[in-house]
Amino acid sequence: MAGLDRFSLNQETIRQWSLPELADGCVAAGVRHVGLWRAPVQEYGVERAAKLMRSAGLSVSSLCRGGFLTAAAPAERAAALDDNRAALDEAAALGTGTLVLVCGGLPEGDRDPAGARERIADAVAELLPHAEERGVRMAVEPLHPMFASDRCVVSTLGQALGIAERFPAERVGVVVDTYHLWWDDTVPALIDRAGAAGRIAAFQLADWITPLPEGVLLGRGQLGDGCVDLRGFRERVDAAGYRGPVEVEIFNPALWSRDGAEVLAETRERYRRLVL
Amino acid sequence: MAGLDRFSLNQETIRQWSLPELADGCVAAGVRHVGLWRAPVQEYGVERAAKLMRSAGLSVSSLCRGGFLTAAAPAERAAALDDNRAALDEAAALGTGTLVLVCGGLPEGDRDPAGARERIADAVAELLPHAEERGVRMAVEPLHPMFASDRCVVSTLGQALGIAERFPAERVGVVVDTYHLWWDDTVPALIDRAGAAGRIAAFQLADWITPLPEGVLLGRGQLGDGCVDLRGFRERVDAAGYRGPVEVEIFNPALWSRDGAEVLAETRERYRRLVL
Repeated sequence: MAGLDRFSLNQETIRQWSLPELADGCVAAGVRHVGLWRAPVQEYGVERAAKLMRSAGLSVSSLCRGGFLTAAAPAERAAALDDNRAALDEAAALGTGTLVLVCGGLPEGDRDPAGARERIADAVAELLPHAEERGVRMAVEPLHPMFASDRCVVSTLGQALGIAERFPAERVGVVVDTYHLWWDDTVPALIDRAGAAGRIAAFQLADWITPLPEGVLLGRGQLGDGCVDLRGFRERVDAAGYRGPVEVEIFNPALWSRDGAEVLAETRERYRRLVL
Repeated sequence: MAGLDRFSLNQETIRQWSLPELADGCVAAGVRHVGLWRAPVQEYGVERAAKLMRSAGLSVSSLCRGGFLTAAAPAERAAALDDNRAALDEAAALGTGTLVLVCGGLPEGDRDPAGARERIADAVAELLPHAEERGVRMAVEPLHPMFASDRCVVSTLGQALGIAERFPAERVGVVVDTYHLWWDDTVPALIDRAGAAGRIAAFQLADWITPLPEGVLLGRGQLGDGCVDLRGFRERVDAAGYRGPVEVEIFNPALWSRDGAEVLAETRERYRRLVL
């Protein structure tokens, strides 16, 4: 099963699994990498989760998520910075070099996304020394423009690079997620630019399906169920020099209602057939 | 009320109104321009609708919509071209120089939006002689990327210009709609480019609000209820040389459940306060 060694399972894809179930399920399926989320890790205990993953021989490809750095009010901004420092600590404890940043939407009444992106860049600058100390890279994730107002004003790979490129590549990178970027014709050239500078910190996969559900957060498709040229993305990211894990991250209640091992087997089969 | 003379009411904003109610309501409120949709116009009768609007002294700022030009199968493609020729005829009969094109999504199983955009450009080329004959300009409308798979693979003003600029500006233009474009930092420069070439065929307003409803089509916000810098858009479009009607086009069931005259008065007041 050459090529499957880079496959990483983001835990939200099978959120019905507890962390021990995740570790067992991955070991049973031969999966070597997992993407984790802060809330379930905190609930289980950060050190305990780190030990669980180490004992299972699993590497943590990324921790989701820091970010939400767009507040203009000083108290909110300080709280966000503190929270991101804690996230960097947690990433380091888990042994992952990558903290994904979902950068935040527009504060109430704010109509200036460009200004909000500047506040994000300022916040990343403030977090840099702590990231350096912990040996963790911050990965700015562009989210689909449908999330621009309430979740992430960084909507394109171009905007993400516009922030990341102000900082050293080994400390601030970008996330390439097929779900968020598939519609954008400027993406291939931007992947080349990001890859040439060593800034692709994470590569994530999900397919695009419609109709979108209310709130649009949980409408991601299983690999192959939608219209994204997944293999084309993987080839482009590889050609740009990325050699890290390829993380499948799908938020979809239909997958959560099924047997986790079955979902993992299906996902691996789709990955082998449609991504490799 | 200087400045209000460019205000245009797209009929879908108050879809509870019949065409005669629309004409009466606009006259009563001093509105001089309306944007119309093909289905209600066809139902009422194209010539009859044209006469109704003329008698009321209303100009038709645009007709929505032609498009859906992405089919690859010959029979489907031919049917789409025929339908667009009919739409050009209807626009001419209504006395509007602008047919809005919602260009179409990806056919089933298609994973190549760039290829679909090329098919759109080919179709526009085929429609050009008929548009010329009818004296109508086709206006390529970029829709928000959340519609890219099922409604319109033209997701950015850059992609729209990439199609329009292959043709004479007096026959193929673009639509600038705040709802679809507000999140994109490349838009201001693209508005300048479109305006300098005389390619802004229509300017439409709606605000961005969340949470998005299921299917995301009917989630547009009344002016001022969301996060779009409406005045900034209007100023940029004006500075780029656009002098045409400013059309308010909001799809929102909450507005449709209210008294039409009240919605129009509110919309005009918001327009005066937030757009002018």
